Amino acid sequence: MTIDPVALSADLIRCPSVTPEEGGALVLLQSLLADAGFECARVDRNGTPNLFARWGAKGAARSFGFNGHTDVVPVGDARAWGHDPFSGQIEDGVLWGRGAQDMKSGVAAFAAAAVDFVRETPPDGAVILAITGDEEGSGRDGTLALLDWMATQGETMSVCLVGEPTCPEVMGDMIKIGRRGSMTFYFEAEGVQGHVAYPHRAKNPLHGLVDLLGQMTQKPLDPGTAHFQPSSVQITTVDCANPANNVIPARATATVNIRFNDAHSSASLIDWATALARKITDQSGVTFALNPTVSGESFVTPPGPFVDLVANAVQAETGVAPELSTSGGTSDARFVKDHCPVVEFGLVGDRMHQVDERVPVEQIETLKRVYTRILQDYFA
Amino acid sequence: MTIDPVALSADLIRCPSVTPEEGGALVLLQSLLADAGFECARVDRNGTPNLFARWGAKGAARSFGFNGHTDVVPVGDARAWGHDPFSGQIEDGVLWGRGAQDMKSGVAAFAAAAVDFVRETPPDGAVILAITGDEEGSGRDGTLALLDWMATQGETMSVCLVGEPTCPEVMGDMIKIGRRGSMTFYFEAEGVQGHVAYPHRAKNPLHGLVDLLGQMTQKPLDPGTAHFQPSSVQITTVDCANPANNVIPARATATVNIRFNDAHSSASLIDWATALARKITDQSGVTFALNPTVSGESFVTPPGPFVDLVANAVQAETGVAPELSTSGGTSDARFVKDHCPVVEFGLVGDRMHQVDERVPVEQIETLKRVYTRILQDYFA
Repeated sequence: MTIDPVALSADLIRCPSVTPEEGGALVLLQSLLADAGFECARVDRNGTPNLFARWGAKGAARSFGFNGHTDVVPVGDARAWGHDPFSGQIEDGVLWGRGAQDMKSGVAAFAAAAVDFVRETPPDGAVILAITGDEEGSGRDGTLALLDWMATQGETMSVCLVGEPTCPEVMGDMIKIGRRGSMTFYFEAEGVQGHVAYPHRAKNPLHGLVDLLGQMTQKPLDPGTAHFQPSSVQITTVDCANPANNVIPARATATVNIRFNDAHSSASLIDWATALARKITDQSGVTFALNPTVSGESFVTPPGPFVDLVANAVQAETGVAPELSTSGGTSDARFVKDHCPVVEFGLVGDRMHQVDERVPVEQIETLKRVYTRILQDYFA
Repeated sequence: MTIDPVALSADLIRCPSVTPEEGGALVLLQSLLADAGFECARVDRNGTPNLFARWGAKGAARSFGFNGHTDVVPVGDARAWGHDPFSGQIEDGVLWGRGAQDMKSGVAAFAAAAVDFVRETPPDGAVILAITGDEEGSGRDGTLALLDWMATQGETMSVCLVGEPTCPEVMGDMIKIGRRGSMTFYFEAEGVQGHVAYPHRAKNPLHGLVDLLGQMTQKPLDPGTAHFQPSSVQITTVDCANPANNVIPARATATVNIRFNDAHSSASLIDWATALARKITDQSGVTFALNPTVSGESFVTPPGPFVDLVANAVQAETGVAPELSTSGGTSDARFVKDHCPVVEFGLVGDRMHQVDERVPVEQIETLKRVYTRILQDYFA
């Protein structure tokens, strides 16, 4: 008997696991995995629920990891849904509900694939599932907590596949092999207030700020790299709120977000902005606080055996040659990448976080077949 | 018997003529001037009080004009004053009160000089006093109304002296022979909103705006001209109020004030900004509304017989060689300059518009002597 990934997806959708609620989802998975011979442990941290499961020996030379999350974003306007977002209804071949795409079906597909795989063809190595209950929230005590705990326990993954939705349009059209980094500067420029008729007695912080922002945005940071599109610097706001057209203000602020590729790091970008600001300060007397915050560094698992293995499995099961992409927002792959090569592949994600989130059941079945083939090829 | 300019100043200070109130100040002057043989007319427009007075024949070939105002700005925090701002008290040789510098004492000095001069040495020509009750307000119906009325009546001035405070530090140190122009752009930049991770789908209005503001401010407009300091472009505010650091906003605004010399006009500056904005629109798709407002064009009465006459009189009475300046804020000279050569000379203005406005009585007496000598030399 094999595990039906569609039924498991529906069961998980029925668990009301809106972040930070566990909602029964991890309990359900733990039961299934333990029955199949996986060693399981709840690795909760600061109230955030997480589940670790391993089949095979700890520290095995070949150890394949899956990562995903069972928590979901809120339903939004519940009355706008055509189906109860927690009913897991299937209608005309479509499974409805919050998490249908992001990413209870992905978790169900890799859990079903893993359980069937180890039962049917026990591999020479280990299969690990690291599943968190907080990816949609702060994520501070989610996959990070699992990875921290694994390190202390000697639990290792040779490679890891994150089951987030990755396909923009059709099943199989995109694998994510990395992500751009993201950081934000919250600039505060300070000068000396004065009357516009006597600018020599003032220092206009807006002139220094405009100079800095111009230097940061008028030339591209780079032309792109082997696996990344060009980095992007975007000013998201500039504010001063000075109502008087005859007054040079004392202070102004600006926010600049940078999505950067592997030609840069947050540290190199802070150095860059600091040097630009210092030069303007030397020229104008306007001073700057940069207040940088870093969401994540860029990373990439370059094309090679693991990426090829995943791409070949995707193409074999879907008939589509996947694009190897580093586009889009962040995921927990940014944490996993510090431990082992990581690749992301999952469903089409066109309805995630929206009302009436849903997925064709055929996609879930296809995804289980892709994950199964990946396991077969990895341990072949 | 001669007119005491200090007593007249104190009498005027006792008239509570905060704009737009007449407060009795013009009535008092009209009585004095009419008694001395001046033809007087109230030239009120839209409720704004104005006084015209002429000694001598209408349309005389040589006609010397004085211009000034009797309205004053509000007292501000009345409790912070050391003396009642409308009491006109004299203490230790200092006259206290709102208008002591700006510019009831100036009006008193030229009224006293004019009355005494025509009585003692009746000139071959005319002496005109054009005094408004609205210089501190909008000024739409003040000196402009007097000049409009004079034009319809055939009343002409060959030259005009505006009695505003002009000296920065000591009596006699500055004559104003013109003013920079002033205009303001209220820029509105419009682009297309979007997610910072997908900038190619958006058009960031802040990038276009920063580009425009940078081009307007990073190089001086000019190095200055014969009688003017360099023009100055000052950004006074930039605003967007976008709280989301992952969102490219749709709109942003900025205000830019320009103080410009006679190398420019408001029209040439609008052309300049329009061309810069158009080029950025062509490159980026960000569009701009410029919304220019013009406060006044630049003007200058170049050094020549009239300026020399005033400067010589100042130096003779004060012992100081006055600087010929075009600095500072606007005055009604910007209206007078369309009718005849105009020069400004008056008291030290270090306390105008402040609490405890006051003036040494000696300065008022000196000012009357300067004005008297100017009249003598002009009609000599």
